[in-house]
Amino acid sequence: MVDSSAHRPPHQVVIVGGGFGGLYAAKALAKADVNVTLIDKRNFHLFQPLLYQVATGALSPADISSPLRTLLNKSKNTKVVLGEVSDIDPQSQNVSVGCDTIPYDTLIVATGARHSYFGNDNWEEFAPGLKTVEDALAIRRRILMAFEAAEQETDPQKRQAWLTFVIVGGGPTGVELAGAIAELATQTLKADFRNIDTSTAKILLLEAMDRILPPFAPELSQTAATSLSQLGVTVQTKTLVTNIQDDIVTLKQGDQVTEISSKTILWAAGVKASPMGKVLTERTGVECDRAGRVVVEPDLSVKGYANIFVVGDLANFSHQNGKPLPSVAPVAKQEGEYVARVIQQRLQGNILPPFTYIDRGSLAIIGNKFAIVDLGLLKLNGFLAWIFWLFIHIYFLIAFRNKVVVVVQWVWNYFTRDRSARLIIGEESLVPVASPSHSTHYLLKI
Amino acid sequence: MVDSSAHRPPHQVVIVGGGFGGLYAAKALAKADVNVTLIDKRNFHLFQPLLYQVATGALSPADISSPLRTLLNKSKNTKVVLGEVSDIDPQSQNVSVGCDTIPYDTLIVATGARHSYFGNDNWEEFAPGLKTVEDALAIRRRILMAFEAAEQETDPQKRQAWLTFVIVGGGPTGVELAGAIAELATQTLKADFRNIDTSTAKILLLEAMDRILPPFAPELSQTAATSLSQLGVTVQTKTLVTNIQDDIVTLKQGDQVTEISSKTILWAAGVKASPMGKVLTERTGVECDRAGRVVVEPDLSVKGYANIFVVGDLANFSHQNGKPLPSVAPVAKQEGEYVARVIQQRLQGNILPPFTYIDRGSLAIIGNKFAIVDLGLLKLNGFLAWIFWLFIHIYFLIAFRNKVVVVVQWVWNYFTRDRSARLIIGEESLVPVASPSHSTHYLLKI
Repeated sequence: MVDSSAHRPPHQVVIVGGGFGGLYAAKALAKADVNVTLIDKRNFHLFQPLLYQVATGALSPADISSPLRTLLNKSKNTKVVLGEVSDIDPQSQNVSVGCDTIPYDTLIVATGARHSYFGNDNWEEFAPGLKTVEDALAIRRRILMAFEAAEQETDPQKRQAWLTFVIVGGGPTGVELAGAIAELATQTLKADFRNIDTSTAKILLLEAMDRILPPFAPELSQTAATSLSQLGVTVQTKTLVTNIQDDIVTLKQGDQVTEISSKTILWAAGVKASPMGKVLTERTGVECDRAGRVVVEPDLSVKGYANIFVVGDLANFSHQNGKPLPSVAPVAKQEGEYVARVIQQRLQGNILPPFTYIDRGSLAIIGNKFAIVDLGLLKLNGFLAWIFWLFIHIYFLIAFRNKVVVVVQWVWNYFTRDRSARLIIGEESLVPVASPSHSTHYLLKI
Repeated sequence: MVDSSAHRPPHQVVIVGGGFGGLYAAKALAKADVNVTLIDKRNFHLFQPLLYQVATGALSPADISSPLRTLLNKSKNTKVVLGEVSDIDPQSQNVSVGCDTIPYDTLIVATGARHSYFGNDNWEEFAPGLKTVEDALAIRRRILMAFEAAEQETDPQKRQAWLTFVIVGGGPTGVELAGAIAELATQTLKADFRNIDTSTAKILLLEAMDRILPPFAPELSQTAATSLSQLGVTVQTKTLVTNIQDDIVTLKQGDQVTEISSKTILWAAGVKASPMGKVLTERTGVECDRAGRVVVEPDLSVKGYANIFVVGDLANFSHQNGKPLPSVAPVAKQEGEYVARVIQQRLQGNILPPFTYIDRGSLAIIGNKFAIVDLGLLKLNGFLAWIFWLFIHIYFLIAFRNKVVVVVQWVWNYFTRDRSARLIIGEESLVPVASPSHSTHYLLKI
């Protein structure tokens, strides 16, 4: 007798997106009896939690990225395709990449999120956000060019605008950016300029809620705020940004409206789902939330389509405590791994219990040797928390090979307070323009 | 009695360009009784000899660059200006930067060179050269995208064109690029692709002369050629490139004309002086050579203008043996330091003997553990030469701080054959286009 199952083509899993969700799903399927195709428009996985260190000149893009092909080259059942998925057809079970269509038996969509300006998309021009390597290099250029322009500016008011940095949003990214800019200004760049004192730079961190770092316990938020103040950051909570235009930020704190003149405004306030969310809603009729995230079933599948899963920042999973899980790397990673298990169990005729997220705690870093750690029962702050932060990140980076370099860089940065990756690069790195006052300064196209 | 000299404003030295020539002149003037202004259009000094390692994904731009302000922040008499010099007025002794003019008593011009296509500037579009960080990132993008496109291409002929790499010019840069691409293809990327065998890539190194690496002794050129062949590089000497267009290189070897179809053609064949050479010729009437370099006096000054010096790749210094000194970092460095001494001695009424270049030898690297070293009496090749190359470069990089990271990266790369900086980044990193054959591939705007 011939075993017909031996001739059945293997189950095809297509994963869209090589962030934490997609990559960990692919890794977990490495030994499974399936064929995996991972599609991403970039050739590398990005360790996004450290992107702010690229934006502030402490690390290079390659330090926090690894080629997807290399990360998956031991998985002989896995193919990496460099390309952008433009459409999904749940009926014929295909995804479109350029002019090609790739068939799937099971689809995992993990395309993540971009920043959101809450309907004020015209603010983006003045207040860039931080999601990609290019974003990070553009923000680095802005920050460093602001100090250069201040050095050349003779008008005191204009100089102050170059030396004013406004960060909108007091979540982890905003806090980490503010702390790192403060350290640049007060330590790294202090000896480098002749006409300006970089330590007089004004760094403003704005948060709409009543405290920064809302995912943390209130006492840790307070510690973080104090530590930021000591670094030279002005923290303003309960503050709404009502307009951003032409280097002017308009704030509302209670009834008081203020205008701040700043040449460097950075956006760390909100996220919205990537366009694939809309595609899924249109093609499957699945519900999405206000941020465009796909509302998923308890097993992370799309309602009515048991073979389509959504994981990571693109998914709204609210079955655990009624609130959507936060948009952080550990959620994406655990979701990706869970879906990989679901697929394998289904092939054996088994059904897994619903997904549950195990929250191992939150970490945030404020400056060179201060962090806060909230593990629920255990709460740390200060130097010890910083050491803890360091070990956790080294541990996770090690998995991405070659990142021993990052450790060396951090140790060096710590002792020297130097930031070696302070290069202003890119095609548009320098556009000299003449201002009416006949001083020369430099504007950047972003 | 009042000492009137105490009230005389200090001697103003303006240096244009922060490469090896300009930077070492500024460093040598750190303790002199002069004011120094260093003007560069970039905010960093670039260690150009290692640029090919950025182009081939072994290092990040920040690994081989250091901010000029930081390199000079201990020199209290030195100011760094970020800007581009557009003109020089030798009569009123001013340089123009944007709308500003900066006065000088002594001027040092050290703006270097760009690549030259010997009158065929239309070749640049198809065969980019390697001089800036942006060049290196663009070349890195081209090389990596070629493998990606080959992976997706189903037509065997087109696939072969994606897997053919042509490097024009057998000097150190061409040799180092060819060796590094061969290693990428045969080692680093070998396990990463599913449809192609990257080790079948064809890497062609073309040289017009009768041997590669003409500055070295003939026996070392021969060793280098043999070593390149073992790595998988086809070395063709006495070969002229007569045309480059639409991914086709036309070659002439003797009477034989060949056409090669290649999607990745890199230019490492010639250099020409930066535009400042033309400005100097027009403003001072000084002679320039065919490559646009300024023919300088025995003390590196411009004829008729004792207070204007030209150093580095922009200078044609032929007083030592009738031939111009080569365009390499040690020449620029020694010239910069010499001019700094001339300026200091002149202020004390002394005259220095003419400049003489001390040639300490030549080094080139071929692949991961093979180099050639020509110190005149001592000639080395192979692993020992590679160790020697490593120590020399570590020694010079150390001077630029923080480059301990590079050493760690090299040691890692050596043992793992990994190249971690293989990111395809930049605004134009991915432009999917449909080809008539309905396969999807990716073209790059460079």
